[in-house]
Amino acid sequence: MLDDVLKTIDDDLPSSLERLSNLLRIESISTDPAYAADVGAAAEWLATDLAGLGFDASVRPTPGHPIVVAHDRRAASGPHVLFYGHYDVQPVDPLVEWATPPFEPQLVTVDGRDRIVARGASDDKGQLMTFVEACRAWLKVAGRLPVPVSMILEGEEESGSGSLKPFLVANADELRASVALVCDTAMWSPTRPAITIMLRGMVGEEFTVIAADRDLHSGLFGGAARNPNHVVADIVAGLHDVDGRVTLDGFYDGVGEPAEAIRAIWESLRFDQSAFLGSVGLSAPAGEAGRSVLEHIWSRPTAEVNGMIGGYTGDGFKTVIPAKASAKVSFRLVGDQNPERVRESFRAYVRSWLPSDCRVEFSPHGGSPALRLPHDGAAVAAARKALRDEWGVEPALVGSGGSIPVVGMFKQALGMDSLMVGFALDDDRIHSPNEKYDVASFRGGIRSWARILASLAE
Amino acid sequence: MLDDVLKTIDDDLPSSLERLSNLLRIESISTDPAYAADVGAAAEWLATDLAGLGFDASVRPTPGHPIVVAHDRRAASGPHVLFYGHYDVQPVDPLVEWATPPFEPQLVTVDGRDRIVARGASDDKGQLMTFVEACRAWLKVAGRLPVPVSMILEGEEESGSGSLKPFLVANADELRASVALVCDTAMWSPTRPAITIMLRGMVGEEFTVIAADRDLHSGLFGGAARNPNHVVADIVAGLHDVDGRVTLDGFYDGVGEPAEAIRAIWESLRFDQSAFLGSVGLSAPAGEAGRSVLEHIWSRPTAEVNGMIGGYTGDGFKTVIPAKASAKVSFRLVGDQNPERVRESFRAYVRSWLPSDCRVEFSPHGGSPALRLPHDGAAVAAARKALRDEWGVEPALVGSGGSIPVVGMFKQALGMDSLMVGFALDDDRIHSPNEKYDVASFRGGIRSWARILASLAE
Repeated sequence: MLDDVLKTIDDDLPSSLERLSNLLRIESISTDPAYAADVGAAAEWLATDLAGLGFDASVRPTPGHPIVVAHDRRAASGPHVLFYGHYDVQPVDPLVEWATPPFEPQLVTVDGRDRIVARGASDDKGQLMTFVEACRAWLKVAGRLPVPVSMILEGEEESGSGSLKPFLVANADELRASVALVCDTAMWSPTRPAITIMLRGMVGEEFTVIAADRDLHSGLFGGAARNPNHVVADIVAGLHDVDGRVTLDGFYDGVGEPAEAIRAIWESLRFDQSAFLGSVGLSAPAGEAGRSVLEHIWSRPTAEVNGMIGGYTGDGFKTVIPAKASAKVSFRLVGDQNPERVRESFRAYVRSWLPSDCRVEFSPHGGSPALRLPHDGAAVAAARKALRDEWGVEPALVGSGGSIPVVGMFKQALGMDSLMVGFALDDDRIHSPNEKYDVASFRGGIRSWARILASLAE
Repeated sequence: MLDDVLKTIDDDLPSSLERLSNLLRIESISTDPAYAADVGAAAEWLATDLAGLGFDASVRPTPGHPIVVAHDRRAASGPHVLFYGHYDVQPVDPLVEWATPPFEPQLVTVDGRDRIVARGASDDKGQLMTFVEACRAWLKVAGRLPVPVSMILEGEEESGSGSLKPFLVANADELRASVALVCDTAMWSPTRPAITIMLRGMVGEEFTVIAADRDLHSGLFGGAARNPNHVVADIVAGLHDVDGRVTLDGFYDGVGEPAEAIRAIWESLRFDQSAFLGSVGLSAPAGEAGRSVLEHIWSRPTAEVNGMIGGYTGDGFKTVIPAKASAKVSFRLVGDQNPERVRESFRAYVRSWLPSDCRVEFSPHGGSPALRLPHDGAAVAAARKALRDEWGVEPALVGSGGSIPVVGMFKQALGMDSLMVGFALDDDRIHSPNEKYDVASFRGGIRSWARILASLAE
């Protein structure tokens, strides 16, 4: 049966690309109110397409752009999956840098690789259509899907997903499934797929050190008066030891090390850290001594000062000792690190540095724990097998240094883990002019999802 | 003869105050082009008044506001002195906070002390008129001044003195004297006059640390990529050791200690450092351990970060690792510290902290050595005797943590030292609404200058 499905996918690829092109022609830019009707049209297009496949599909209003929900529960058994994608796209500026109009999809061949060029071709219309087309093939060949499938397709991902979490909470019973499938990530390389099994958490904290009750003249007071720029610098400088480790009390509680099986996969990736750093003009890893760059960005927690300001920062000079100085610090969390404990430890650390006649004000900015998908659980096992069969290579099990907000929302609102598989490539130029999606990504993605659905049913 | 002069000063005090009031009525705000004619009128008023006393007085054009130059070389002997003052004033904003109109001088009595209230009453029209009135009394009583006197009165002090140095250079032979008399400083207290014998120098330097060639996402790169905020913080934090001493190589070369006689005077001042710090909301001296606050601000060199910025500093949070971060650092210099050597040492220090894949850009902002007037020289001795006779107390020989640009200009352009004596009080509210000058300051100032001129002739 799966072989027939895969053959149908290949046979129907031209019409799959035609459908993707039709969706890409809709200018569903979610950040710009001028395109609100287009965003709605994309939702309608998807709901109509899914209804045509037999899904119970609807366009559901929110305070922002609508959310498309679709269910096909005709499969008698197997784990219920909830697929997530988004049909809104980034703005197209600067328009002059586009070689072809962003909403007139083009099939072109570059270096022997076919690609479809349009805004949203990769992020996320192309990616979400891989799953829709996989369902279409299964329904055409078998008349039903291997497992019960629900979909949630939002229209606000590029503008902050403001409506999504309330919607999940309000519709939790309808939407809760065994596992979420999230298709918004990339392949490890054009020939090797990836499953993202770790997302770092984050704690943001701004602190302001206040010394004198006014700005002082650094000639008249310099030397005698406490300079909050110096205090902030001391605090920031003391945040890491000479080995690059974060000095906060208890910071590494719950961090742990990746399983041996994960480490083995990471070693097999032969990650080129010189190329990674070199791509942004750097050459020396800055993180904890004795750790690889992959560990730095996937499995180790960090403390980074994202912003720092105090005193006169305009052109020229002003010899002031400012009344206050501040910094915004973010901590990336892994494993079981507790966001609130990290925040409290940081605040205690800052207070411990504070001279007697300074005071400090704190302002919290978000806190979320790290997320992990058990690398040896059923969902990952099913996806590994399916991807290995399709691509002929063991998929990379990777971490992500940043967050994917929807994954946290699924965990918090629905108690669900997310299987993150996507087929984007690093050169897809998402959010930039001339965004593209390789036809090999599209075809391989459809075939991969067809296999994953079958594998999940086993 | 001096006694007659002093008696004349007291007898004529009402008319002296009337003349000061006439000058104060001229709205000579130098920063606002709308008042250019008023600034010129103040210059004319002064030149006319001085010419009436027999000075060879002229209003000299500059690219900015005019400079008044006046000479009375009728004294046959004694050191030639060049008196400096400025006739321009600060703007008056916020006007609503003035109890009486700023350019309608009022004689009022507060807490038993008579004062004249107007913009410029203290800074610097009141102060400069103390010297003019002293000359007037000498000329009235004796027909000539005790020593040859020149005056230079500028109209751009409150807007940067842009024309002054070129004017000094262009007219060096005309203006060069034995010593300059600068009347733009304050008394130690309402009952104790002061002579400023030390001015700290300054070196300003801005540095920018550049790491990656673009701003990076702190999730995707955090931990692996060098964060220039951290580098700047390390550099700033390392600038002082735990005892508050500056760590630059050779920084203390040429610093030296004040003479024992100076130290004795400073101890006699019974400076209330708690009150000094408390007046701006501080309580603990921040400078070098084992040094008094007076040393911190007068006789010790400093390193202060006047400005520091890197990354996202607006509202909320942006999880960025910035491409660059920067700081503006000023060093206050004392003794024989060499500004350029300090700058070079700082640059070497910054480079020594720089990670291999960062680079640094420097931008210099001025450099001037400290200035000292020999505390046991003839000019200070003459002023000490005169002030002691007038006020019945040994004058304070003080330092100034900040710079007085004209003093550096006299040194550089004319090779002249400056005797800095002034009669302002800390509560004169210069640059603020309701500026005032005590009549006791005005009378005591006139009498002091009369005595200093006599004393210089001896």
